[in-house]
Amino acid sequence: MKAEILTIGDEILIGQITNTNSVWIAQELNLLGIKIVHMASVADDEASIIRAFDDAKSRADFVFITGGLGATKDDITKKTFSKYFNAELILDEEIVKHVASFFIKRGKELTEINRKQGLVPKGCFVVHNPNGTAPGMWMKKDNTVFISLPGVPYEMKAMILETVLPKIKRENNLPHIYHKTVLTNGIGESALAELIEPWEDELAKKNIKLAYLPQLGVVRLRLSTLGPNKDLLKKNVDEEIEKLKTIIDTYIFGYENYGEETPSLADVVSKLLRERKQTMALAESCTGGYVSSLITGVAGASDIFKGAIVPYTNKAKHELLQVDEAIFANVGAVSEECVKQLAENVRKKFDADFSLAISGIAGPTGGTAEKPVGTVWVAVASKEKTLALKFIFGDNRQRNIIMSANYALNVLRKFILKSI
Amino acid sequence: MKAEILTIGDEILIGQITNTNSVWIAQELNLLGIKIVHMASVADDEASIIRAFDDAKSRADFVFITGGLGATKDDITKKTFSKYFNAELILDEEIVKHVASFFIKRGKELTEINRKQGLVPKGCFVVHNPNGTAPGMWMKKDNTVFISLPGVPYEMKAMILETVLPKIKRENNLPHIYHKTVLTNGIGESALAELIEPWEDELAKKNIKLAYLPQLGVVRLRLSTLGPNKDLLKKNVDEEIEKLKTIIDTYIFGYENYGEETPSLADVVSKLLRERKQTMALAESCTGGYVSSLITGVAGASDIFKGAIVPYTNKAKHELLQVDEAIFANVGAVSEECVKQLAENVRKKFDADFSLAISGIAGPTGGTAEKPVGTVWVAVASKEKTLALKFIFGDNRQRNIIMSANYALNVLRKFILKSI
Repeated sequence: MKAEILTIGDEILIGQITNTNSVWIAQELNLLGIKIVHMASVADDEASIIRAFDDAKSRADFVFITGGLGATKDDITKKTFSKYFNAELILDEEIVKHVASFFIKRGKELTEINRKQGLVPKGCFVVHNPNGTAPGMWMKKDNTVFISLPGVPYEMKAMILETVLPKIKRENNLPHIYHKTVLTNGIGESALAELIEPWEDELAKKNIKLAYLPQLGVVRLRLSTLGPNKDLLKKNVDEEIEKLKTIIDTYIFGYENYGEETPSLADVVSKLLRERKQTMALAESCTGGYVSSLITGVAGASDIFKGAIVPYTNKAKHELLQVDEAIFANVGAVSEECVKQLAENVRKKFDADFSLAISGIAGPTGGTAEKPVGTVWVAVASKEKTLALKFIFGDNRQRNIIMSANYALNVLRKFILKSI
Repeated sequence: MKAEILTIGDEILIGQITNTNSVWIAQELNLLGIKIVHMASVADDEASIIRAFDDAKSRADFVFITGGLGATKDDITKKTFSKYFNAELILDEEIVKHVASFFIKRGKELTEINRKQGLVPKGCFVVHNPNGTAPGMWMKKDNTVFISLPGVPYEMKAMILETVLPKIKRENNLPHIYHKTVLTNGIGESALAELIEPWEDELAKKNIKLAYLPQLGVVRLRLSTLGPNKDLLKKNVDEEIEKLKTIIDTYIFGYENYGEETPSLADVVSKLLRERKQTMALAESCTGGYVSSLITGVAGASDIFKGAIVPYTNKAKHELLQVDEAIFANVGAVSEECVKQLAENVRKKFDADFSLAISGIAGPTGGTAEKPVGTVWVAVASKEKTLALKFIFGDNRQRNIIMSANYALNVLRKFILKSI
């Protein structure tokens, strides 16, 4: 079964708001095995909406429409909906009662404008809106179901989860979908593509599609497939991932399972430490607190994180973390010697099981011929061992910070696992 | 002039990534007076792409296409582009040289896959990609210009700003546009709207449009206008902003000038310190290094920033920043007493002119009846003075961290300016 998602509203087209409704609907439908074939955003304009309805009808079994259902004049979705279905608007007393109760609960008067929210096209199935006053509408034209919902995310979501998806499931016999995403760090998209080309070429035989989803310092590989046998889909994908592991195991730091959020490297490291009841501390120079903010962004961070020091000057590196002053004169703060001392001393200072230290040249200035912008030293330390690695990233400050953070967290992950 | 924005990629349709490219492009084109009539997202599938091209052609003068230009097999935009324009792909040696230099700079080998990035449809205008290896393509069919760009945001943005928009401006006779954005912190969108309503009502007379652009902890007010006389546009907008200042001066922390990036609160604070040749230090508990990462994200941070300590445990607050242990037992770490000591001691430790300390309950757990999740204490200190303020934000961890950072940085800004 195929679906199209249509967003109605001038505010989308002028770039005033980011369309997060479509992402959410797409995820929900995907989980149900409904394939999204198209997404579109159009203005609050009758001709544009009707054209979009016709286009969607030619492509999809279900058209999910959000937006344009407000009580204000610029919202014209309902009028257009009734015109498209050639169905007059009639007052639904059940909706009026719901709208009235909504206002009474909030101590407000029911206005004439709000009473009109009870108008729906004759013959439409009304989708109840428990969190708001604009009703949803479900109507069918030939073989395509059109479902119009408000644009307010928390109203729309409740209506889809409570009414729309159960109805779709009940009325249709849907094929299954399965996908799993492999998360990698330490290799670029094109190098990865070359490495796994022979494996990738075999995927089609099993009806598995592969997508490369690159982010800064992370490449995600999504394997997706669909068919009638749910267990077989999972088995096929899992088998291919096992084969893939034999090729690129060293780069894989995690997986995004079907229906779950993508774990970040900070999530993976946090989980690892939590499982082992261990803790970490950070000394960050060029990343300036970014790694610390990633780790503390994960709920429950205080269980595994003792703290960070961002010694942004040589003086602070010496005074707060006892880096030998001779190092600055001899090899500089961006050096193996410096990051090792930072890692060892920050670990002791916070009495943590592990520490991570990062010192580099984020740019745009500060680079030399010997140490160009993008040069970054990373060290990890435990009570038993200290290890340092050098990376060379690019020339963009923000990207260097993000790349450094991801690479450093993956070094820490491997260090905790004793795989380096 | 009308434009359509087309995003190509399965990852959009399965809801794996949020489409932020379209929002950005829409904003840029709007500012230029080009109206976006449609946005669509389609799969990496030839038939869908070609149908979308045809539909776009029937609606728009410019079609902006992003995505599907990677070197990997699932990216088919270029092949489809060449088919649509009936133009064979030929190797452009200039692009190959650029791609090669890109790899050499990073000490990597040019692979065959990457050489193929030099292929472009015969007759196309190549849009140079300074930040990546995939070239952009500009081709015209009848009266519609198709511009295909990579989906990586920072590559796409540079290409649009450096090549595409200047070319559009040059080749078309566009009216002048002027806009300036007023940046506020400390007041919500609706309270702001009520406060400035009488002023806002007068804007239409001068053909000035006002847009509210709320972010977490910041509301931006964009005044935009267009017409034949560039100087008059600027004069009108500047006059209105002077009037606005008399109403909401206390909330304004900066301005976004036409054609410039929006300064963040970190930018504003950094600039202020740089002008005064002064420095700052940070002690962050609930924000966990996020403010430090914002400050160090600004190029040249080492001139004004001495460092940060993230004491994530009470023990660390005591040992590293000498917070009296009695405070934890008596009033807790989220208290005026604690943030004041953190601010005073971190300033001394780093020998900085100013310091900022933040301690709060980010959530989701850790709240009490007396101190609910979202309670945040902020302190600022100089040699002469220490000041603490309490804020209560919401119940979402990520939002609380971002709100805390923005409010805290604005407190520091006012403190540096001696306006609090």
